[in-house]
Amino acid sequence: MDLVRAFKPVKVLSHDPVAHSIVLLGTTSHAHGDQAILILKKTSFSLDSIEQIAWEKLESLESNDIYTQQRLKLVRETPELYESIVRPYIDSFPSERTNWVRNILTYKTESEKLLYDCPDFVILPDFKWDIKDVNTLYLQAIVRDGTIKSLRDIRYSHLAMLRQIRSQATKVAAKWGIESGGLRLYVHYQPSYYHFHVHIVQVNYTGFPGTSIGQAHLLDDIISLLEVHGNLQPPIFQKLALSYTLGEFHALYEPMTNALAQLEMVDQE
Amino acid sequence: MDLVRAFKPVKVLSHDPVAHSIVLLGTTSHAHGDQAILILKKTSFSLDSIEQIAWEKLESLESNDIYTQQRLKLVRETPELYESIVRPYIDSFPSERTNWVRNILTYKTESEKLLYDCPDFVILPDFKWDIKDVNTLYLQAIVRDGTIKSLRDIRYSHLAMLRQIRSQATKVAAKWGIESGGLRLYVHYQPSYYHFHVHIVQVNYTGFPGTSIGQAHLLDDIISLLEVHGNLQPPIFQKLALSYTLGEFHALYEPMTNALAQLEMVDQE
Repeated sequence: MDLVRAFKPVKVLSHDPVAHSIVLLGTTSHAHGDQAILILKKTSFSLDSIEQIAWEKLESLESNDIYTQQRLKLVRETPELYESIVRPYIDSFPSERTNWVRNILTYKTESEKLLYDCPDFVILPDFKWDIKDVNTLYLQAIVRDGTIKSLRDIRYSHLAMLRQIRSQATKVAAKWGIESGGLRLYVHYQPSYYHFHVHIVQVNYTGFPGTSIGQAHLLDDIISLLEVHGNLQPPIFQKLALSYTLGEFHALYEPMTNALAQLEMVDQE
Repeated sequence: MDLVRAFKPVKVLSHDPVAHSIVLLGTTSHAHGDQAILILKKTSFSLDSIEQIAWEKLESLESNDIYTQQRLKLVRETPELYESIVRPYIDSFPSERTNWVRNILTYKTESEKLLYDCPDFVILPDFKWDIKDVNTLYLQAIVRDGTIKSLRDIRYSHLAMLRQIRSQATKVAAKWGIESGGLRLYVHYQPSYYHFHVHIVQVNYTGFPGTSIGQAHLLDDIISLLEVHGNLQPPIFQKLALSYTLGEFHALYEPMTNALAQLEMVDQE
């Protein structure tokens, strides 16, 4: 605390409206020439605004609270582990968990927010975006076909739809002045909810979790893999091992790390 | 600046020895109930320590100065664009640029730092790691075969070596108490220098750039792709489009964005 009090600003290094932060270079009086950087960030919500949050949707949110530091492990999900552990886990969710998705797709909720709508998917602003600041532009494409739970279910027959998501996202973002190459489109595996969706984010907007390897897969890479693998059976996303980090509080953490530990023991025998 | 002065700490949210930072929740007196988060970070170097930096190596470093905010674009490098633009760019580097790598591989420099050594590759601490704090463990595996410039040159014949890098990195990290699943191994494309190397980083160490999609590729994913594609010709990493972000000051930015703009014009005709 003394360090904060002693901080003497020398220079504003950057002012980031995206992160609501200002970065200051300065000195602390503790030691001669001891430089420090001070970053001031605004919290996103006042107490008043919390009442306006749609609590019923909260179960669908991914945890991106940078101050909750779960211990992570990287696990390698082979097709066999998908079948024995992950698919049963996904199938165990009651379908009501994604009612909020079907409500969007059937225009019961948020129909006024749709930015693009076609028989295969819709595009709408992610709830995290304020629909104003182009620097933090964050959209989601949600497919209509509820049988596509995750990346594991993507087939060659979905290639045209994925290309359409890419081109339509580009057109939607152009309305906010975003040029070609100005978006990062990606898919999470494991995702935060099991109804296939694509994250569409301004490419310079990097100050948040969720774009890291071990969770995120570029849509461009997914499309290229489908193009190269073609219609060969089994489909490419049923053949690949998919590796990802799991926080210790994730329901898959125990079964996956236990299964991998057993496999390692077999390897060493 | 007034905001900083007015900050009244309420609670220490986290103290992160990795980032040399402390995160405080508090209030500013500007408005009733206006909460703010204050993050204090130490700079890494004092003026005295700068004289000890090995300046001759600086050209090999990647730029991860979070305060230099280049405008990024995501570009999609097809095999054709690799041949016409990227390969000539890589080949244009004088071989002296990677002398420092060959010096390591021939024990002229840093031989005392090697953590693993075999005919295919070496493992040593990344210069960014202090070789003490396990939370920020950061190693590099550098292959001996200088003809492997980047991910584009990886072939099925390298699969055994990549698996060895994975298993030996795990053994080396175990000396620091890191368990199975405790590492994130990845490759950059584009890399910061064109001699194939693998980043080996403690999996919970995420507070720095370089693990994002659009630059990083999990070694596990690379291995799985080689396993699935097998020895079919052409090799998988010659067939895939590889997409990545380029900063506007990168030498490939102009030629790649120009080429992609031309391709888009052809598409629209």
